Amino acid sequence: MPVSNPTEFQTSPDSADLQLSADGRLRHLLTLRGLSRAQITDLLDQSDKFLSPPGSPVIRSKVLAGRTIANLFFEPSTRTRASFQLAATRLGADVLNLDVNTSSRAKGESILDTIYTLQAMQVDILVVRDASTGVPAYIASNASETVSILNAGESIVAHPTQGLLDLLTIRQHKGAFENLAVAIVGDIAHSRVARSAAEGLMTMGVGELRLVSPRGLALDADTIPGAQVLHDLDAGIRDADVVMALRIQRERIDDIDDIPGIDEYAANFGISHDRMKLAAPDAIVMHPGPINRGVEIESSLADSSASVITKQVTNGVAVRMAVLSTVAKTLDAR
Amino acid sequence: MPVSNPTEFQTSPDSADLQLSADGRLRHLLTLRGLSRAQITDLLDQSDKFLSPPGSPVIRSKVLAGRTIANLFFEPSTRTRASFQLAATRLGADVLNLDVNTSSRAKGESILDTIYTLQAMQVDILVVRDASTGVPAYIASNASETVSILNAGESIVAHPTQGLLDLLTIRQHKGAFENLAVAIVGDIAHSRVARSAAEGLMTMGVGELRLVSPRGLALDADTIPGAQVLHDLDAGIRDADVVMALRIQRERIDDIDDIPGIDEYAANFGISHDRMKLAAPDAIVMHPGPINRGVEIESSLADSSASVITKQVTNGVAVRMAVLSTVAKTLDAR
Amino acid sequence: MPVSNPTEFQTSPDSADLQLSADGRLRHLLTLRGLSRAQITDLLDQSDKFLSPPGSPVIRSKVLAGRTIANLFFEPSTRTRASFQLAATRLGADVLNLDVNTSSRAKGESILDTIYTLQAMQVDILVVRDASTGVPAYIASNASETVSILNAGESIVAHPTQGLLDLLTIRQHKGAFENLAVAIVGDIAHSRVARSAAEGLMTMGVGELRLVSPRGLALDADTIPGAQVLHDLDAGIRDADVVMALRIQRERIDDIDDIPGIDEYAANFGISHDRMKLAAPDAIVMHPGPINRGVEIESSLADSSASVITKQVTNGVAVRMAVLSTVAKTLDAR
Repeated sequence: MPVSNPTEFQTSPDSADLQLSADGRLRHLLTLRGLSRAQITDLLDQSDKFLSPPGSPVIRSKVLAGRTIANLFFEPSTRTRASFQLAATRLGADVLNLDVNTSSRAKGESILDTIYTLQAMQVDILVVRDASTGVPAYIASNASETVSILNAGESIVAHPTQGLLDLLTIRQHKGAFENLAVAIVGDIAHSRVARSAAEGLMTMGVGELRLVSPRGLALDADTIPGAQVLHDLDAGIRDADVVMALRIQRERIDDIDDIPGIDEYAANFGISHDRMKLAAPDAIVMHPGPINRGVEIESSLADSSASVITKQVTNGVAVRMAVLSTVAKTLDAR
Repeated sequence: MPVSNPTEFQTSPDSADLQLSADGRLRHLLTLRGLSRAQITDLLDQSDKFLSPPGSPVIRSKVLAGRTIANLFFEPSTRTRASFQLAATRLGADVLNLDVNTSSRAKGESILDTIYTLQAMQVDILVVRDASTGVPAYIASNASETVSILNAGESIVAHPTQGLLDLLTIRQHKGAFENLAVAIVGDIAHSRVARSAAEGLMTMGVGELRLVSPRGLALDADTIPGAQVLHDLDAGIRDADVVMALRIQRERIDDIDDIPGIDEYAANFGISHDRMKLAAPDAIVMHPGPINRGVEIESSLADSSASVITKQVTNGVAVRMAVLSTVAKTLDAR
Repeated sequence: MPVSNPTEFQTSPDSADLQLSADGRLRHLLTLRGLSRAQITDLLDQSDKFLSPPGSPVIRSKVLAGRTIANLFFEPSTRTRASFQLAATRLGADVLNLDVNTSSRAKGESILDTIYTLQAMQVDILVVRDASTGVPAYIASNASETVSILNAGESIVAHPTQGLLDLLTIRQHKGAFENLAVAIVGDIAHSRVARSAAEGLMTMGVGELRLVSPRGLALDADTIPGAQVLHDLDAGIRDADVVMALRIQRERIDDIDDIPGIDEYAANFGISHDRMKLAAPDAIVMHPGPINRGVEIESSLADSSASVITKQVTNGVAVRMAVLSTVAKTLDAR
């Protein structure tokens, strides 16, 4: 009797192949890859309906009444967990928060047994965050047909609800994607935020997508076909309509040769008021949070009228409400 | 002024004497000892009513609306806490999760002061898990008459809701208990799951109860009068209708002489497809979870049609709904 | 681009100046300083309405339905967090619990970015506990006009809902404040409980307020103008109508010269049945909890009919319901 292999999920099926039902409905949300422009547009349209005018009460409904949503976070998170919890609660669902760190997974039960247990408790939607590539797809490919899996952050490869909220924020401020130049700036190589945003932007037909990073933190050029890979911030930001800074981890800087330290990173890749003079006049500045002020972005710029950072957070709840209600409809339609 | 004694609960009154009200109603659930066959049958009958057909929505009600349930877990737990939380939520209660580790108890307030505080906040039902024998009874014997105590796992001696869900699962698959042979296999000595299941099975008049373990992990023969104490798995499993494997902790194996290591444990006491050929043809396999696959049970057997492991989990929520609503009725009747 | 200063809140504006709206309504609750006798009386009157007779169901309403309350605790707490959670839930609010320890704040996002994020998620009321002086005022002075801040414990300077529950408890047992002698006993210097209670009592016109402590744990005499600073328990307790013991931290004793150890503290400043013979015949004994039984208070005295300690806990939920519904009305009136 072999002991179960804790890395069994490393050969997971492709997320994009798993997430649609036979009749093309959104069954799980694992990645923005493979979603059509129409599907993404529909999710963004729904998200807009979950946004209330500033100062007015939040939109609430009972479309998830009787449903149970479990937040299964194998990686710590405060804001994404809170965003999913509020989205589910405002739709009338019951929410179960399960913070399970990876070490307890190692010594305890396998991922699948955790999933089987939650299924047996009649949880309907599992929101999963994990530091390992393949875990959401592995769960989705083994889950019962009564359960939907939502990826709330997977290793360095996918964070699809973040990608959707980025698209929604850009659309709200810039309208159509076709004529836009979007610059994503920072540690592209290790950013699930950049990956999901880039995949979504290409599907939406963005005019120009620039992935701007130190050489040591670049993605392979063919990971996002059609995107420009740049290593000079001035070139990357020039005439851009949208500038999205990514969170940097200091230890990543120590691992690369072309940027010797965090101060040099801030000087060369930090987004400042001065730098933004190169961008289009009405360019917006984005950041997924949490911000290292003075590193990825000048502090006063993050609080300026060009910044849409807090709008991204508001949109995040709306996007998650749209995704939750969409997969719940797919479950209803079985 | 003496400092309060942190081990004051070690001389707790008998759980069985505390849990019924003067007119015989279930007031607390501390142990399956002392409950009559009629009382257990009633709880199982109620549990069945909280189970919905597969694929249909969960059963919900408002019988606990306005009630507050506190999960007071002095020992970590994910699945039992989640099961109680869902049970309470699906009955309309408000739920307060309090994860208090024992070290904070040592330096902080006494158990009773925590209980007095929760009572004063008008908590109605306290779900308590603790690593020390006597804590639930100690709390029950000191609690106000407005509060019910439910034992969610007590040292190695009692886990009554787990016992009830095991009985329910057996009854669903096998009907009457009288003609059944049930084998419980593993670390009987340290298993509150085994103790509660065994006590419940004897009360229900099970035909034959076999407690199968290494010699170093056996219960005293007179702990469960009428049960057979066996140390050979083949003898224990032969013609059994129900085979319940227990979770083993690796460090327990290191403490005994007759089994040198985890591999030998798996070889001698692991439940496999091969081993199950000795059992009755339609025997079911149970496990309280979390499973060490390949140790207590062959992985493919845990996922086979003979396994009722996930049904146990589903039944766990239903049993807890039955227990919560029963003690709430006792509180109402005061 | 300067890195944001983690101690920016040390020059916060005065809490008392921030907490009222232009038309004098309670907008935030940061301190009892600056609240008028009429305002405090109004909060106490409202609190009384949230108290149900013993044994009857808790008072519930829907006045916070659609509102989101976030418990943002940068310092661990079980009872205060639970009390706010129950208060919010019983008023129909959605509750988000965020336990953020200070170390994660140090390496992660700034306090203000956490607040901006919660605001953007349309949280209405932020309940904040922090070990640093100035944090609640700093947050309140930077928060959007759509958000109320409630101080749930701030360093050694303020714990206003605790102060209100102490006032409520005294009023319930003693009626008017004018003729009362109140003794607060213990580590006055480091007690936010003592500070808020003392400020509230002076505003309410208490007859006599005695702050009784070892010399090394006294407040500056002018911190609470009009209060008596005493170092002899017998003098402090004589003819007192109310005796409030404070929780002592053992490490504080080690830092002072006049009390050599915890046993001497208990002998000289512990409240006992014997000591209470000096007080007024119907004097009440209070403690904010958690109690070190046998140190600050004789264990049997804490459980005697003179003790109102559990009533303080019950009143705590009612006071928090009153405060939550009051600031929600201010938000509604914008």
